[in-house]
Amino acid sequence: MKLLPHFSSLVDTPDGGIQRLLARALEVERNPISEVLRGRVLGLVFLNPSLRTLSSFQAGMAQLGGSSFVLTPGQATWGWEIRDGAVMDGIAAEHVREAIPVLCQYADVLGVRAFAGGRSLEEDFAEPVLSAVRSHATKPILNLESAVDHPCQALADWKTLDDEQIPGKGGRFVLSWAYHPKPLPLAVAAAASTMAARRGMDLTVLRPEGYAFPPELAQRIRSEAKKSGGSYVETSDRRAAMDGAHVLYVKSWQSPAHYGDPTSEAALRAPLRDWCIDESWFRPARPTAIFMHCLPVRRNVKVRDEVLDGPRSRVIRQAGNRLHVQKAVLLETLGVR
Amino acid sequence: MKLLPHFSSLVDTPDGGIQRLLARALEVERNPISEVLRGRVLGLVFLNPSLRTLSSFQAGMAQLGGSSFVLTPGQATWGWEIRDGAVMDGIAAEHVREAIPVLCQYADVLGVRAFAGGRSLEEDFAEPVLSAVRSHATKPILNLESAVDHPCQALADWKTLDDEQIPGKGGRFVLSWAYHPKPLPLAVAAAASTMAARRGMDLTVLRPEGYAFPPELAQRIRSEAKKSGGSYVETSDRRAAMDGAHVLYVKSWQSPAHYGDPTSEAALRAPLRDWCIDESWFRPARPTAIFMHCLPVRRNVKVRDEVLDGPRSRVIRQAGNRLHVQKAVLLETLGVR
Amino acid sequence: MKLLPHFSSLVDTPDGGIQRLLARALEVERNPISEVLRGRVLGLVFLNPSLRTLSSFQAGMAQLGGSSFVLTPGQATWGWEIRDGAVMDGIAAEHVREAIPVLCQYADVLGVRAFAGGRSLEEDFAEPVLSAVRSHATKPILNLESAVDHPCQALADWKTLDDEQIPGKGGRFVLSWAYHPKPLPLAVAAAASTMAARRGMDLTVLRPEGYAFPPELAQRIRSEAKKSGGSYVETSDRRAAMDGAHVLYVKSWQSPAHYGDPTSEAALRAPLRDWCIDESWFRPARPTAIFMHCLPVRRNVKVRDEVLDGPRSRVIRQAGNRLHVQKAVLLETLGVR
Repeated sequence: MKLLPHFSSLVDTPDGGIQRLLARALEVERNPISEVLRGRVLGLVFLNPSLRTLSSFQAGMAQLGGSSFVLTPGQATWGWEIRDGAVMDGIAAEHVREAIPVLCQYADVLGVRAFAGGRSLEEDFAEPVLSAVRSHATKPILNLESAVDHPCQALADWKTLDDEQIPGKGGRFVLSWAYHPKPLPLAVAAAASTMAARRGMDLTVLRPEGYAFPPELAQRIRSEAKKSGGSYVETSDRRAAMDGAHVLYVKSWQSPAHYGDPTSEAALRAPLRDWCIDESWFRPARPTAIFMHCLPVRRNVKVRDEVLDGPRSRVIRQAGNRLHVQKAVLLETLGVR
Repeated sequence: MKLLPHFSSLVDTPDGGIQRLLARALEVERNPISEVLRGRVLGLVFLNPSLRTLSSFQAGMAQLGGSSFVLTPGQATWGWEIRDGAVMDGIAAEHVREAIPVLCQYADVLGVRAFAGGRSLEEDFAEPVLSAVRSHATKPILNLESAVDHPCQALADWKTLDDEQIPGKGGRFVLSWAYHPKPLPLAVAAAASTMAARRGMDLTVLRPEGYAFPPELAQRIRSEAKKSGGSYVETSDRRAAMDGAHVLYVKSWQSPAHYGDPTSEAALRAPLRDWCIDESWFRPARPTAIFMHCLPVRRNVKVRDEVLDGPRSRVIRQAGNRLHVQKAVLLETLGVR
Repeated sequence: MKLLPHFSSLVDTPDGGIQRLLARALEVERNPISEVLRGRVLGLVFLNPSLRTLSSFQAGMAQLGGSSFVLTPGQATWGWEIRDGAVMDGIAAEHVREAIPVLCQYADVLGVRAFAGGRSLEEDFAEPVLSAVRSHATKPILNLESAVDHPCQALADWKTLDDEQIPGKGGRFVLSWAYHPKPLPLAVAAAASTMAARRGMDLTVLRPEGYAFPPELAQRIRSEAKKSGGSYVETSDRRAAMDGAHVLYVKSWQSPAHYGDPTSEAALRAPLRDWCIDESWFRPARPTAIFMHCLPVRRNVKVRDEVLDGPRSRVIRQAGNRLHVQKAVLLETLGVR
């Protein structure tokens, strides 16, 4: 029996489901090669670039005996339309109303990456592409990073925290904003903070003025924290945030207060170049505090080499866990015992 | 023994061959997974974009136990030259005289997509790329859509008609032109109408003035109709064309009368926006008449949502049949019993 | 036990290693299909275009029962930074310090293509990308063509010479420059001449004034010739060079004297269009002299059709041998007996 109809978000996944995925990830980490997915096909659709996701899914499927194909709409494949009722006289030549049912006839499971549009928070929190894809799917859909979520990353991060024996209840997880030359989506920041809250940790979101999480996200995190007994605060006080921290997780995101207005957002962001993490940030933290980041990371812009190349960094391990947890997701969505 | 040396066109395929491919497609539809192509490799070369063709061939090969690779000349691979005697001091860095024999050493079968040049009807009916590819091939070549043909689509459409139990002899097949913002190749219109004629159906090509099929194509269709006892007429009278129809198959194509002259073609096409199929088109047809289209389709430009989302539409089924018929083509061209 | 930690250059590969790879290549040529790499994954990273390398590695891996994935940084994957200490506020979003350790967690062996930067000879001879990749790798790295080497091509060429029973000791190998509309890297010219010297042949590099090999490369070739008893001279005298030749291997490369200065290089190159090989070049050679080229080749710019389509040409065979030698490299780097 299948645990999951789709894998869209950890928020949708029951507690038992997360534990089962994590247990399964440990199993495939120990025994990576099998033939259980012989003849099964994974379709991967990337509306945005990818390194880890593409290669770990293709490798993972192969290690389980299955196969995969990759489509990149707008590059070697037609651009996609998602709006119902659209008059398609522009660039997009293919509607998801056809593309998804068609691909579900070729593939046993379908992964889709579709970053945020960045025009409006309301639109992005509605997850327009992922929702459209799911509503036309006849096979399990995997979220390979959507407008405001990245559950494969969040699950890999959860496993990384387990591997490191960092406690859920009582564990102090700091998610810090960092400077980046571009206005970035909220997806990973949202996924990581929601994951920490769901794991029962004490979450502090550390960010400059103007970068507070939007109400839609704050509400989601509070709801997860409530389920698990975790907590959630925001601050711009670096020292207070880092006091006694087990984990510093770093990500940049555009100002929700200036969403869809890149000019004013850039002006707000310009003086914040000192939000580049170096070893001094860890002074108030536990001596064994670890550093996490989803990658790719702009070195010496978001984080200094001394941190990325130092003993605190778990970024390679996080990426390695992508392979194991995604294989677990494939097995559970395909109903393979 | 191999049924087919190459799979270039239904026109080249003997009657027994088509029936055998269709029978085999039914077999693989019932039993999709096997290991018969273990160790065999399909090379896929896309000189133009693809969604269905790429993914259904990669999935189909995998389901049969084989493997595939994809090349996109001009993107991640060098651009290709096809002209004999060319002095290659322009963009193209690779000649098919090398590329094809080389790839035939790596792959057991090779699929190539090469759309029409759109400069001259004479040139496009000579199928310059497909011909060049075939003449240098030492392995079976599959036509993944060429200048004026698309046999994989045509065979999938034939199977769809069989699945729907629409008669060959006496079946009324209307191929209608539709508006599109760009001047499109003749390939699918040619393949679908040739297929209907070959299947013994009564074919009506419905199109505005100025969009009559060129003599090269009309001759091909008449020849196929003659073999099978089918018939072929053209008209611009919508009501007369649709009278008693079993099938409305829709496709846009550029005016053959203005071929290679996009400015005058655009002027001819501009006032034809009412060639957008809606439910009213079906009034004179049989109540159970079906709607077919090869995809991708520009919704509400070529066809209204009410048709695509309504009970007449078989577009998803057509695309699904691509997988089954192409697996049959792979098995037959590779000589696997 | 594994023969090779990495496969970066024939220069690094011990004599016994080359002989073992060539013997293994013959074995897999005779028995191409097996299951020995079941569950193993090859990652292929192309920072530059490819036809033969991509398709022959993907086909070869599949024929051995394994699987592969392809990444193209800067296209469907983020651009890569290689410089230590870089402040990453430009285009590149991913550093090899993360990318390589991450990919080494997904793949069992990693191939990387990274052409020369073309700015300075010193920089290119330091092989900055390949060195960075190797220094961060935890799995075997295969050189799929680097700044100044192409060992997969060189090994395939060695096998082609063996197939043709052209002697090592006493064999006369001419590497000739040819005209090309662009300033090209030294990689294949360097790899082929180094290979010929290592094989014990008498190597003549035939090139116009201004195209002498740079000291870094001349030294490498002399060192290989010394090991094997081969010889190495350069000349611009076509007749003298071709006298008694067994092999004419053709490649274009930019003038090392004008390296990093494309304007002056273009001026030097412009009057050299008669460096386009035709049958007359072979008059002083042995009657059975063969023509070799790594492909892709610009017909009638570098070489005339009469040579490429004539009986001397071994270009298709060379490319075919890529498949066999690369399968041998995969088996040896993965330690499969």
